[in-house]
Amino acid sequence: MPIITIEGPKASKEQKKELIEKITKVASECYNLPEQAITISIYENPMDNVGVGGKQLSDMH
Amino acid sequence: MPIITIEGPKASKEQKKELIEKITKVASECYNLPEQAITISIYENPMDNVGVGGKQLSDMH
Amino acid sequence: MPIITIEGPKASKEQKKELIEKITKVASECYNLPEQAITISIYENPMDNVGVGGKQLSDMH
Amino acid sequence: MPIITIEGPKASKEQKKELIEKITKVASECYNLPEQAITISIYENPMDNVGVGGKQLSDMH
Amino acid sequence: MPIITIEGPKASKEQKKELIEKITKVASECYNLPEQAITISIYENPMDNVGVGGKQLSDMH
Amino acid sequence: MPIITIEGPKASKEQKKELIEKITKVASECYNLPEQAITISIYENPMDNVGVGGKQLSDMH
Repeated sequence: MPIITIEGPKASKEQKKELIEKITKVASECYNLPEQAITISIYENPMDNVGVGGKQLSDMH
Repeated sequence: MPIITIEGPKASKEQKKELIEKITKVASECYNLPEQAITISIYENPMDNVGVGGKQLSDMH
Repeated sequence: MPIITIEGPKASKEQKKELIEKITKVASECYNLPEQAITISIYENPMDNVGVGGKQLSDMH
Repeated sequence: MPIITIEGPKASKEQKKELIEKITKVASECYNLPEQAITISIYENPMDNVGVGGKQLSDMH
Repeated sequence: MPIITIEGPKASKEQKKELIEKITKVASECYNLPEQAITISIYENPMDNVGVGGKQLSDMH
Repeated sequence: MPIITIEGPKASKEQKKELIEKITKVASECYNLPEQAITISIYENPMDNVGVGGKQLSDMH
């Protein structure tokens, strides 16, 4: 632990690599814990499956 | 915030649109918060991946 | 299944009862599944623990 | 309730069936609750989407 | 990874210790992964905060 | 969306503020989305409730 779950749009391997590297670094510094203790899971949710303000993202973009 | 996550079976775009609209409305009324503050994520989990009472849903349907 | 998780502000027993009743009803209708199949979990997260746009909610309210 | 969510690598139908059966049994015994009350959701996350110690699992395997 | 999240009722330290030991063992065997790779998080949700079939658990027990 | 959930140890208001600011910034840059679109939830889980390698964290620290 810590465990960080990121729910976001479709992303490339490079974007996910960057998210993992940079967010692990921030969490390690803020919690004063070794990077090795930090696990990150990324979920890519299609726009039909996400709503903000009662609207489907796919109807807003 | 609020963030509402719905894990359910495969659903059509229309069903997901209806879930997002109606659940956002209910949450907005119950919490007395603007609809714009509410985010909804829908996850569609295959029947092999869900168990109730120790049984795989795919073996029950 | 379906499982619906609601992350929101502190709420009264009555508000949570209303959320559970109404959201179960909506999900049952949208998925065309019996209410008995639907589980709802509510998490009440303090304002220090939630951020929108990079700001702590407790610093915005 | 209880609701148990398992995030892991790609798995076969048989592996998921075994996870559901055995973990339901353990939870039922530990909580002293009927197996029927226990719901399990399994999520299979690709290696690009998981990071440990700041590294993408797909770069470590 | 794997990451296993357990949402259940209030439990003693001993019950949580047993859940962690036994569920880690099952996951390790089913996934054929070392126990060291497995993280477990337990959340204890009050009965007011959980609904099954549209009813608050606190109104059913 | 994106929604980022952080499960970690007990943290001060200042640590949580820093996590929210810095992780929002990283996610905004990586996804090329405005910071306003990003929601962060932090959960502080007691050591009895977390297991790594089959051991309760409270027995390891």
